[in-house]
Amino acid sequence: MTSAFESALRVSAGCATPEARSGSVSRMRRPLSRDEYVHGILRGDRRILARAITLIESSRPADRDLAGDIMESCLPHTGRALRVGVTGVPGAGKSTLIEALGQYIIGEHGQSVAVLAVDPSSQLTGGSILGDKTRMVSLASCEKAFIRPSPSRGSHGGVAQHTREAMLLCEAAGYQNILVETVGVGQSETAVHDMVDFFLLIMLAGAGDELQGIKRGVMELADLIAINKADGDNIAAAERTRSDAELALHFFPVSRLGWSPRAIACSAFTGRGIPALWNAVREFSALTRFNGSLEQNRREQRRRWLRDALEHGLAQLFRAHPLIHQQVGVYEQEVVEGRTTPFRAARSLLEIYTGSARPGM
Amino acid sequence: MTSAFESALRVSAGCATPEARSGSVSRMRRPLSRDEYVHGILRGDRRILARAITLIESSRPADRDLAGDIMESCLPHTGRALRVGVTGVPGAGKSTLIEALGQYIIGEHGQSVAVLAVDPSSQLTGGSILGDKTRMVSLASCEKAFIRPSPSRGSHGGVAQHTREAMLLCEAAGYQNILVETVGVGQSETAVHDMVDFFLLIMLAGAGDELQGIKRGVMELADLIAINKADGDNIAAAERTRSDAELALHFFPVSRLGWSPRAIACSAFTGRGIPALWNAVREFSALTRFNGSLEQNRREQRRRWLRDALEHGLAQLFRAHPLIHQQVGVYEQEVVEGRTTPFRAARSLLEIYTGSARPGM
Repeated sequence: MTSAFESALRVSAGCATPEARSGSVSRMRRPLSRDEYVHGILRGDRRILARAITLIESSRPADRDLAGDIMESCLPHTGRALRVGVTGVPGAGKSTLIEALGQYIIGEHGQSVAVLAVDPSSQLTGGSILGDKTRMVSLASCEKAFIRPSPSRGSHGGVAQHTREAMLLCEAAGYQNILVETVGVGQSETAVHDMVDFFLLIMLAGAGDELQGIKRGVMELADLIAINKADGDNIAAAERTRSDAELALHFFPVSRLGWSPRAIACSAFTGRGIPALWNAVREFSALTRFNGSLEQNRREQRRRWLRDALEHGLAQLFRAHPLIHQQVGVYEQEVVEGRTTPFRAARSLLEIYTGSARPGM
Repeated sequence: MTSAFESALRVSAGCATPEARSGSVSRMRRPLSRDEYVHGILRGDRRILARAITLIESSRPADRDLAGDIMESCLPHTGRALRVGVTGVPGAGKSTLIEALGQYIIGEHGQSVAVLAVDPSSQLTGGSILGDKTRMVSLASCEKAFIRPSPSRGSHGGVAQHTREAMLLCEAAGYQNILVETVGVGQSETAVHDMVDFFLLIMLAGAGDELQGIKRGVMELADLIAINKADGDNIAAAERTRSDAELALHFFPVSRLGWSPRAIACSAFTGRGIPALWNAVREFSALTRFNGSLEQNRREQRRRWLRDALEHGLAQLFRAHPLIHQQVGVYEQEVVEGRTTPFRAARSLLEIYTGSARPGM
């Protein structure tokens, strides 16, 4: 089921895809089998890819089982794309820069691009990223581009999980570059950082008050800082900020992948710096593929996703337990008020949990 | 039971404490009751404080119960101290700077100081922080100082937990300033950052290769960066690094506590910058007590410690389950090799866990 939003993105001269034209009628299409999904994805059918991603985002148990089977069949065909995370505070120009970058990659390098988004804030704010139908229309009209907005529901972990699986399906469908957009203010940067090879932070000239929105720690995740809107009267200021950022980066350790983060001034409007930006990404890719750290990093990322998924699941089981559900708030308040220690409260809660639920332990 | 190490630290002209002199004989002392511990701590008896901390570090169930009771009784008497975390790569001069700072606080401000340490690396490396018997001898000999090396065993979480509880006991014993030392290379900075009000990062002039050891993300935790060893021929270089660091800090957002991190050049050897450093800490303390963010931060820290302790406990229960213990490695390998998704593997493992352990669910 393609969302009306996605359909709207696709309705554009020349490159609208079939499901965009079918509109809401698509909701009545017959179910596809696992093999139809898998074969469709592997031959790069964007309509089927879009439906598979919708399936991933579904909360129906039957859909989830089918989605899991599709994922598993597609996994051997993943891993060849370059995965780039893009973050920055609202107003930094993420969407326009991604559009310019996507068009550059397609136009100059002849490669395909999929754009995905994680926006845990969309439930609260009504959606700020990829949420404006007028955005990326030009990129969306390219045959070699696939654009998918953020899933509109689910928890943070869930949304990030869906985006990660959507990314893998895009890879199986043959997309060579995946750009994953996120906002720089939520909890999502770490999740995106954990699913990509390269992390791009978009900032604006001035490096002052307007950066307040960026969470501490996010800057040090960056493999590249792009000072955006380096055009017109803003060029000099952007260049100054770029050189300041470059200096700030010298204070950061070289990443364990062997890459030294850098700063580039660019403009989505004039295209300034876009080639340099993408060259840096390609250089990173070549370096880390050569020294093996790209694959090593991906293995660690997979391990971390498993650990996080287990933690999340265990916490859900725990909180769903009737006695815990009833008591946890009381203990939490005792801890927060400083009347008991976190460890004593945790021990008591775990005793309640194991004592009643599993008498054998 | 005072460690031989601690005793050695205390053997110093004028200020050696009783238990330091008693040496290994202390192991034969009679057990104290809960009330004896609590009253001893509250009246500032360093011998009893040291024994209570040893009790906290014990893995014997009876000791742990008693330690928990002592903690709970002491909790209402905690919270008045200023809690400062100190980190930096090995060689940055953490111990000497802490010693100089401690002596300054005692000598110039007439306040008491407790120094604790978290060093999860000590099990691997044989101990690098507070692990050199010749260190801090001068501070250790002061009546108003209490120095406690890192617990030498236990998991990361455990060591940090013990340090946090030791910190609270020191507060109950009346210490007005707690300095918690950690290395800048392990997992411990976040744990220390989560137990202190103010986080001090010690660096050296040059800001180049020698900083490689600092983990990404640690710099952005810093409330103050001290460029140490700003003495002799090194003053100019340290000042340059300081101003570079100051510039780099402008790229960081103001912390949610309302504090703008700054950089100071200092020397533990000449005392240069030590007053400015401590004034910054006091300024931070005044600001955050005034605007309420100090207490707000501590409440959030306590909530986070509870959450982490629960996560840790649930993970332990999970991994102790016989079927999980047997299967988890297999699934993990499947995930790491990319043959299944983290989420499918997690679901299967959780089904094994709940299915067999709790048939009712």
